[in-house]
Amino acid sequence: MNTGLAHYRVGDQIETFLLIKSVTKGLTQTGKPYLTIVLQDKTGDIEAKLWDCTKEDEERYSTSAIVKVAGEVMSYRGRNQLKLIRIRLATSQDAVKVQDFLETAPLEQEKMMEIITQYVFEMRNPNIQRITRYLLRKHQEAFLHYPAATKNHHEYVAGLAYHVVSMLKLAKSIVELYPSLNADLLYAGVILHDLGKVTELSGSVAPSYTTEGVLLGHISIMMSEISEAATELGIDGEEVLLLKHLILSHHGKAEWGSPKPPLIKEAEILHYIDNIDAKMNMLDRALKHVKPGEFTERIFALDNRSFYKPNF
Amino acid sequence: MNTGLAHYRVGDQIETFLLIKSVTKGLTQTGKPYLTIVLQDKTGDIEAKLWDCTKEDEERYSTSAIVKVAGEVMSYRGRNQLKLIRIRLATSQDAVKVQDFLETAPLEQEKMMEIITQYVFEMRNPNIQRITRYLLRKHQEAFLHYPAATKNHHEYVAGLAYHVVSMLKLAKSIVELYPSLNADLLYAGVILHDLGKVTELSGSVAPSYTTEGVLLGHISIMMSEISEAATELGIDGEEVLLLKHLILSHHGKAEWGSPKPPLIKEAEILHYIDNIDAKMNMLDRALKHVKPGEFTERIFALDNRSFYKPNF
Amino acid sequence: MNTGLAHYRVGDQIETFLLIKSVTKGLTQTGKPYLTIVLQDKTGDIEAKLWDCTKEDEERYSTSAIVKVAGEVMSYRGRNQLKLIRIRLATSQDAVKVQDFLETAPLEQEKMMEIITQYVFEMRNPNIQRITRYLLRKHQEAFLHYPAATKNHHEYVAGLAYHVVSMLKLAKSIVELYPSLNADLLYAGVILHDLGKVTELSGSVAPSYTTEGVLLGHISIMMSEISEAATELGIDGEEVLLLKHLILSHHGKAEWGSPKPPLIKEAEILHYIDNIDAKMNMLDRALKHVKPGEFTERIFALDNRSFYKPNF
Amino acid sequence: MNTGLAHYRVGDQIETFLLIKSVTKGLTQTGKPYLTIVLQDKTGDIEAKLWDCTKEDEERYSTSAIVKVAGEVMSYRGRNQLKLIRIRLATSQDAVKVQDFLETAPLEQEKMMEIITQYVFEMRNPNIQRITRYLLRKHQEAFLHYPAATKNHHEYVAGLAYHVVSMLKLAKSIVELYPSLNADLLYAGVILHDLGKVTELSGSVAPSYTTEGVLLGHISIMMSEISEAATELGIDGEEVLLLKHLILSHHGKAEWGSPKPPLIKEAEILHYIDNIDAKMNMLDRALKHVKPGEFTERIFALDNRSFYKPNF
Amino acid sequence: MNTGLAHYRVGDQIETFLLIKSVTKGLTQTGKPYLTIVLQDKTGDIEAKLWDCTKEDEERYSTSAIVKVAGEVMSYRGRNQLKLIRIRLATSQDAVKVQDFLETAPLEQEKMMEIITQYVFEMRNPNIQRITRYLLRKHQEAFLHYPAATKNHHEYVAGLAYHVVSMLKLAKSIVELYPSLNADLLYAGVILHDLGKVTELSGSVAPSYTTEGVLLGHISIMMSEISEAATELGIDGEEVLLLKHLILSHHGKAEWGSPKPPLIKEAEILHYIDNIDAKMNMLDRALKHVKPGEFTERIFALDNRSFYKPNF
Amino acid sequence: MNTGLAHYRVGDQIETFLLIKSVTKGLTQTGKPYLTIVLQDKTGDIEAKLWDCTKEDEERYSTSAIVKVAGEVMSYRGRNQLKLIRIRLATSQDAVKVQDFLETAPLEQEKMMEIITQYVFEMRNPNIQRITRYLLRKHQEAFLHYPAATKNHHEYVAGLAYHVVSMLKLAKSIVELYPSLNADLLYAGVILHDLGKVTELSGSVAPSYTTEGVLLGHISIMMSEISEAATELGIDGEEVLLLKHLILSHHGKAEWGSPKPPLIKEAEILHYIDNIDAKMNMLDRALKHVKPGEFTERIFALDNRSFYKPNF
Repeated sequence: MNTGLAHYRVGDQIETFLLIKSVTKGLTQTGKPYLTIVLQDKTGDIEAKLWDCTKEDEERYSTSAIVKVAGEVMSYRGRNQLKLIRIRLATSQDAVKVQDFLETAPLEQEKMMEIITQYVFEMRNPNIQRITRYLLRKHQEAFLHYPAATKNHHEYVAGLAYHVVSMLKLAKSIVELYPSLNADLLYAGVILHDLGKVTELSGSVAPSYTTEGVLLGHISIMMSEISEAATELGIDGEEVLLLKHLILSHHGKAEWGSPKPPLIKEAEILHYIDNIDAKMNMLDRALKHVKPGEFTERIFALDNRSFYKPNF
Repeated sequence: MNTGLAHYRVGDQIETFLLIKSVTKGLTQTGKPYLTIVLQDKTGDIEAKLWDCTKEDEERYSTSAIVKVAGEVMSYRGRNQLKLIRIRLATSQDAVKVQDFLETAPLEQEKMMEIITQYVFEMRNPNIQRITRYLLRKHQEAFLHYPAATKNHHEYVAGLAYHVVSMLKLAKSIVELYPSLNADLLYAGVILHDLGKVTELSGSVAPSYTTEGVLLGHISIMMSEISEAATELGIDGEEVLLLKHLILSHHGKAEWGSPKPPLIKEAEILHYIDNIDAKMNMLDRALKHVKPGEFTERIFALDNRSFYKPNF
Repeated sequence: MNTGLAHYRVGDQIETFLLIKSVTKGLTQTGKPYLTIVLQDKTGDIEAKLWDCTKEDEERYSTSAIVKVAGEVMSYRGRNQLKLIRIRLATSQDAVKVQDFLETAPLEQEKMMEIITQYVFEMRNPNIQRITRYLLRKHQEAFLHYPAATKNHHEYVAGLAYHVVSMLKLAKSIVELYPSLNADLLYAGVILHDLGKVTELSGSVAPSYTTEGVLLGHISIMMSEISEAATELGIDGEEVLLLKHLILSHHGKAEWGSPKPPLIKEAEILHYIDNIDAKMNMLDRALKHVKPGEFTERIFALDNRSFYKPNF
Repeated sequence: MNTGLAHYRVGDQIETFLLIKSVTKGLTQTGKPYLTIVLQDKTGDIEAKLWDCTKEDEERYSTSAIVKVAGEVMSYRGRNQLKLIRIRLATSQDAVKVQDFLETAPLEQEKMMEIITQYVFEMRNPNIQRITRYLLRKHQEAFLHYPAATKNHHEYVAGLAYHVVSMLKLAKSIVELYPSLNADLLYAGVILHDLGKVTELSGSVAPSYTTEGVLLGHISIMMSEISEAATELGIDGEEVLLLKHLILSHHGKAEWGSPKPPLIKEAEILHYIDNIDAKMNMLDRALKHVKPGEFTERIFALDNRSFYKPNF
Repeated sequence: MNTGLAHYRVGDQIETFLLIKSVTKGLTQTGKPYLTIVLQDKTGDIEAKLWDCTKEDEERYSTSAIVKVAGEVMSYRGRNQLKLIRIRLATSQDAVKVQDFLETAPLEQEKMMEIITQYVFEMRNPNIQRITRYLLRKHQEAFLHYPAATKNHHEYVAGLAYHVVSMLKLAKSIVELYPSLNADLLYAGVILHDLGKVTELSGSVAPSYTTEGVLLGHISIMMSEISEAATELGIDGEEVLLLKHLILSHHGKAEWGSPKPPLIKEAEILHYIDNIDAKMNMLDRALKHVKPGEFTERIFALDNRSFYKPNF
Repeated sequence: MNTGLAHYRVGDQIETFLLIKSVTKGLTQTGKPYLTIVLQDKTGDIEAKLWDCTKEDEERYSTSAIVKVAGEVMSYRGRNQLKLIRIRLATSQDAVKVQDFLETAPLEQEKMMEIITQYVFEMRNPNIQRITRYLLRKHQEAFLHYPAATKNHHEYVAGLAYHVVSMLKLAKSIVELYPSLNADLLYAGVILHDLGKVTELSGSVAPSYTTEGVLLGHISIMMSEISEAATELGIDGEEVLLLKHLILSHHGKAEWGSPKPPLIKEAEILHYIDNIDAKMNMLDRALKHVKPGEFTERIFALDNRSFYKPNF
């Protein structure tokens, strides 16, 4: 579908509902107050200026409010900007809700939970299965709503679960090609590897890092979580140790945040699967905005590379 | 099967045919000449000393000769050593040949060629298909016999072809999971990525680097090869450019030998597939020698890590 | 000579012809369109704003057009800016042409070609001589017009040829001091080392990188060029291999873009000569704008250093 | 006192009890078995060869046995070696015990525990105090016997406790000089920072890394320990988070094993205190063996530097 | 006390004397001149704009002048800005002087000199004592007024002396804990380590780097100073060599500006003491502006970390 | 000339005078003493074993003694070894002296001094000229005998002076090609850049590092030397500052030992000239031992590269 902020071009006249993503107040050189409002829908966002704003405007147009705007798309310093003609708050009659404006994973949450549950169900090692199921249930609500990251990849509602589903499929292919891999360990590693993010991040919409997230990080948070699960379930085998190691090492190197490098085969593969799925997600999103024969913008999380879209 | 050098233990008495892998002459402290002979079969190798050797011994026992030896397995500085009791050259009556002592890929060469040919056959882009087929045919003989590297991974007869076959299967799985990938480009990249090794290395047995290999490297060698194929076939489209780019960038980073980093999606994935298959090969080989609950030796090509073999 | 943009100071009134280097359209805070025009002559460039521009202005004042302007030099955020009083397109009566506004190498192109030809003529190895001559002729037109780089050093018309001429002289001095060097190889390396830039860059004026340039780079482009020349001329000796190696290694290290480090003496020296000439060019240009006892601006390509100009 | 292995010189005749630190079996060039025995006392160790050893010798002289030896100190490849004249196992009449041969911290364990307990006693934050006391008690036995590391610094019996005592004194000085520091947090950090080593290492004598130690490391092991203590004690405040952060960040940087860098003042200081005490320990030990005006051997853990001992 | 620029908030009306820290002239988009004036008091600084300024304004309001201003604190791009209502130069009747507006060390200069002199007095090695006293006297005036750095830490009047006093106290504690340290050497190293800054920097207020400072640096400047002192005093022992080494190595590593790493114990400790005091100074200053439960701004000189202020 | 140790081959019988480079005493496995003697002439060195040596042998055959030996060249672990048949000390009748066995620069010392003096004589800046002449005279004796380094390049008698002479010629060529360079500064930089080595190293034969050399390094040593020269000569201009900067920065980067990077043009060029001459010296020496079509041993100081010697 080709409507939405990602598709408007300079000169377009638009009249539509949008969600306020952020608001900052500024002063013109001559000392007059104005608001810089970032508006979003499912496809992207755009900046708008509300000149000569009043005290009431400031209170009215705050983050997470839905507004109806009319205006024209202009270009300012190389980026689109919306020149506002009219703006008002949405009312209950407008029958719009916040979710309508948030990008969401392309699979339904129930469907994703069903797929993941099936992988857990098929595990043959009872210790691994019980710990995975325990932690998944404990955080299920957040797990199904959180993004996988605040930016770079899967940074949308339910991005975390979607990332896990994709990785599970990839893991399954690899297990079939290299049968010496322990499927239970690998699948459990996939499901749990980023689960600490539900504590590291503040929520599913416009998440920021929590204090615990900054001071410990999602990897170390999971050390305690797995310990607690094992104690709770009375499990005390090598499986606990290896699950912890899988989480600890999934960033691959100390300088990428893993206090230990992968030291079992499944940990090495988990690191690769995580990377491939994150990068394919970033690449697909970046290349979507580009025509054949052109290059994407530089992508910071991909070593600042600019990728080419072939003509054939 | 549990016979062969990899399986003998200290104290075993052996009498068997072996291939001479290398010979070096030495002097004892008192100035007497002796030979250090490294002997091999399909499963591994072992060192033996021939004390008080004669001129005739020196000529007789040279690299690639097959010998019949009798002796006892001893331990010297932590490694096995064969204490020779008898040694003689094999004769035509012994009916043994060099291939009997070389490790070879676990798939037959005809089978591998068949699989690869099928991938080429299914390509839909005629330019990519023709260049791939041309280069594969040109180097087919060497391609089916060379190892994929002089050490580290797939360092056995037909290792290069086996590495390509494994990578093709992995590539196919990934293409199915991420349908935005161009399968033709990716498969062609897999088939051609290390083909320059048939020029970079000196042969299929005990290969060393050729002068051309040292001064140019297999990546740059393929730049000329693809140019020449395209000229020969009269092909002049973006496919040629992208095939070259795939080869050029498959080591991922400048410091790993790629003059350009991957700048198309298929190049990024090619780099990952190459890594996964090489690492799984190294890990499987290293872990084969280790009991559950123990660690492998440090593996230089895996950042000098020592991997753990779980107990379950 | 002290006229030209590099020499004007704040407060100067100017009326002169200038070339439009680039144009971007902007909007004022109140939504009015204006043009930011960068104007240049042989000595430098300056930014000007055309407020309240019309549709016709936008079409009229485009890149590569010559205009006559009158205005005053002002200072804006520490850089000079031209406050426009009048602007019009040049007409045929004005008898000005684009070349009049482009910086060009300080030697004439015919003179440079003559010098280089003499070096080729004096080569004693026929294989090296023929390949060098072949490739020089094939790309002669572009070689004599292209800059040596898009920025940093020799970034002007015929900068590539001028860089080669300076390097040849330096190479000659070094060969005389270290007679074990092979002069033919070194001179050929100098002449060919950056010749791939005529494919990597888009043209001699305001060059950008071509798609081939981004995906392969001038070093790998030359691999195919030398192969093709050797095939065409029926040459097949070690000279071909070493010429390729010289090109491949002239950036010195993998992380600077060379897939192989220099492995012959002449390659090591080529790398140094390239560096010295590029750096002297950068330093002379940067120090020209600075008074004795002062420091230059930071120079990114020289590790971001700021150089001092002595008082004596 | 100047007796002990560290003080013998080439040519000395010795007759004394020593502890067997390690034994390895070898073969001479002519195939005869011998034992390489490393012997130790509190001051150091020395290698000895037992030629023509019997099966009984092999069983008799194993690691951790005490032997009485007579022999002469020789030099072999630049290192001292003991030429054995007589060797026998110690008997119960000899009245020697293993501890007599192990280097131990210069403070008694009870004294060290008393000092540390006093620091805990003076803590004013009850949460920090209770967690610290809980974990100290839980691991008290091992804490008082383990070394602080397997090599480099405090690598002797009770080295861990001694390292903590020294750091506490240093911490106290720094708290007095910079009163904005939270003493409770800093002291708790000092006491707990390396406590995970009692799980990471295998024991107090000749410790190696446990599997858990290799796969998780002492830093991550403490994440679970602090969680468990807090749960057990019903504590749930910011103190738990900050104690975890102190442990997590005490190696200072990701590449040195800390998944998070110090992000509170006390964590930054903890990292410095740990370094200063470890380095002073290494330097004092290395300089002890050196005369004024000379340099120590290179010390790997101090960036491979060789330190100078001044003449005054 | 809570008055001063650091404490004003958006909306405050202020009328006070302030010192002009810097002035830059600018032009509005429509070409009108204005001044950007940075004003400071002991607690901080703030930017103000003087629109439509005259030639007289430009001359009047120059760096280091004291002005009386009235205005309102506004927010501009996330930083405070003073909207000027009135501004005039201070007159002699106003009885204000430059020192009133400069941040100064929390100890009086006489007091600091007294403390340092005491440390010198107690030195027992006469060579070290005499060199230290000689250099301290030679540069006493500047030493007592200069900051320790142009930014990052102790960047205020007499910051250098205050940094030395704090380091001396810390050194004393450490000498008491590790009695093998040579106190004289360490104290002399503390006192002299940054003394070259009085040549490297241009003055005590708003210092910039001198040409000598840029081309040699304070470390190399001290090489000549100590040589000259030793020659002047007729001292020629190892003390001279070691004092030079202490200065040379106090940045710890080549990449941090030390041509030699610490190679004596006291040099290693000097490096640590310097770091601890500088970092505690930075941290205390950064955390002062932050409420409990919040993070500081990123601190560049602390690896760009953002520190947390605990709630208890 | 093809006699000398560098030219002997396995099997050669030799009888000649040689200089003892070093001696170490060892013990055979059975406890008998022997001497390992390294013998040298101008072309190279060789190891010999003196079995069953007596006390007298130990005293007689010490470093720097000249001996007459007869023996046969053998191969031991891939290196040549001399099997001694006879050995005796040289006597006065033999008329041999130490210098006959030391490698020396290919130019006579007087000739080199003459060339350098001419460069000094032609300097036009009297301050630079006087300082250079002063320091050259002060250290002339050592300057003409010392090597330029203990290993890697110009590591022979008078190597330092020869390195300077070569660099001066190269500097002259570069000054002619880039006339904006200040020749006086550059020549003075060349002459003085390594002069501190006469203090850093212990002598002209088999030099080691002095304590001053280890703790300060030749770069910092020259800071004091230039200061002292300037004071002595009553010179106080920018020339002193720039000469110091040239010395300080000639290693190019902090991590290569230069506390400041080059910040004037002549310093940048000095760094390059130093590199080119050192590398050409290393390459010529390494390639001398290699046949066309072969590679040298790995050269540590050249990034461990192995260089190729072309066939033409």
